[in-house]
Amino acid sequence: MGLGLTPRYITLAALEALRTSDTVFLETYTVPLSDWSPEKLEKLIGKPVVMLTRRDLEDLGGRALLEELDRGRTVALAVIGDPFIATTHLSLKLEAIKNGHRVETIYGVSAHCAAVSASGLFPYKFGKSATIVYPRDGIVSEYPYDVLKENKERGLHTLFYLDVLEDGRGMTVAEAIEILLGVEERRREGVFTGDTLVVGLARLGCSDEAIVSGRASAVKRWSGLPGPPHMLIVPGNLHFMEQESVRVYSVDAEKRRS
Amino acid sequence: MGLGLTPRYITLAALEALRTSDTVFLETYTVPLSDWSPEKLEKLIGKPVVMLTRRDLEDLGGRALLEELDRGRTVALAVIGDPFIATTHLSLKLEAIKNGHRVETIYGVSAHCAAVSASGLFPYKFGKSATIVYPRDGIVSEYPYDVLKENKERGLHTLFYLDVLEDGRGMTVAEAIEILLGVEERRREGVFTGDTLVVGLARLGCSDEAIVSGRASAVKRWSGLPGPPHMLIVPGNLHFMEQESVRVYSVDAEKRRS
Repeated sequence: MGLGLTPRYITLAALEALRTSDTVFLETYTVPLSDWSPEKLEKLIGKPVVMLTRRDLEDLGGRALLEELDRGRTVALAVIGDPFIATTHLSLKLEAIKNGHRVETIYGVSAHCAAVSASGLFPYKFGKSATIVYPRDGIVSEYPYDVLKENKERGLHTLFYLDVLEDGRGMTVAEAIEILLGVEERRREGVFTGDTLVVGLARLGCSDEAIVSGRASAVKRWSGLPGPPHMLIVPGNLHFMEQESVRVYSVDAEKRRS
Repeated sequence: MGLGLTPRYITLAALEALRTSDTVFLETYTVPLSDWSPEKLEKLIGKPVVMLTRRDLEDLGGRALLEELDRGRTVALAVIGDPFIATTHLSLKLEAIKNGHRVETIYGVSAHCAAVSASGLFPYKFGKSATIVYPRDGIVSEYPYDVLKENKERGLHTLFYLDVLEDGRGMTVAEAIEILLGVEERRREGVFTGDTLVVGLARLGCSDEAIVSGRASAVKRWSGLPGPPHMLIVPGNLHFMEQESVRVYSVDAEKRRS
């Protein structure tokens, strides 16, 4: 089940499933900067919560969880956001089904969907998404730039996930913009410049959630965003209603007021 | 705020906002086949709920709601699913902001996001979405077919919303497939045939939620889906993990078991 963006985003469906399950597992490593912890969840549901690490799920194939199922227990696997949007536990779901167990999914609000909703851009106009990653060994991936180019050619919006390092540190909107500008400097195809309209989103669902829009160079300089997790949207062609929606978040105070 | 897919999908954040608001409005016309009603919501939060019709919101510009805000009251507008994904109350949000009011969005699980999650397909590989509509005056819109063609050319998945009539009746997966096949018959571009792999989704979030996959001709004949609301996904190029995910829903029992 998805626990949603933050603890206040838990649904009645998730709460009921957690309370009626024999064993509750929690996985938080796929969303390192979330507000959740086993303690918080235990307090909420009044029963013990077993933490699952990346090793448990990826290296050991979720064996602990599958063994509980084989013992005939009802098992809840709680993940931040949504279980299958940008956090994939598909292999575990498939394994459980193959072993003859019934699997029910309780959807949760994911950052991906919250970002689309918050932006005010029309959801059907989003094209392919991609992650902007930090350089590895000095090499910068041009893949996000290519995805952006393809979407723009079709007038579509692009939602970018931002890289998260092993230690949990998340890329900022400013860093993401800088990386895309760096690729533009090499490729020079006019896909992403300092004048490109962008929407930066920070800490969606949290009390300090913030969204800002404007020219890439202005948003990059904007110091008003709280810390990660951040996301970046580069709109394609804008319907006038979408223009209005994006404008309320403008770094330019005059534009906000108009 | 979004109330989510069904009453059990309401979040703690939404409940809290509803209970602490002075005036609560409910809009359900954008999702005609939902489980929600003003009575159900009133029972849940213990206070009166004012129903907003399409006329209130679209013709009268949400005046009733804006006037409450001007009187200094805290107003909650509850909508099914998510407030801004495929249910757009952007103009109301923008109007409220222009009038100097603070607007907070509480995201909810939308059918769009639940469909992506349930399908097991990688969310970043979804291209543009579209609605498959019933013929009007004997004319069938070819737009969904064009969207599908463009996405397929890029190997991307296509999520289709299905038309809902004024009286609330929703298009079925079978009808949607039939319409696309009809366009193929005219256009003959090999975009959508009886052999095309599809994923049909019904009543996501409800206790009788069902998902089925397979060749379009087989899924069209499948009688095991509960009634609308339905959605249709036509996958593009599949990663082997996506193939596995789709296979568990196969109309072909043998494929399901493998």
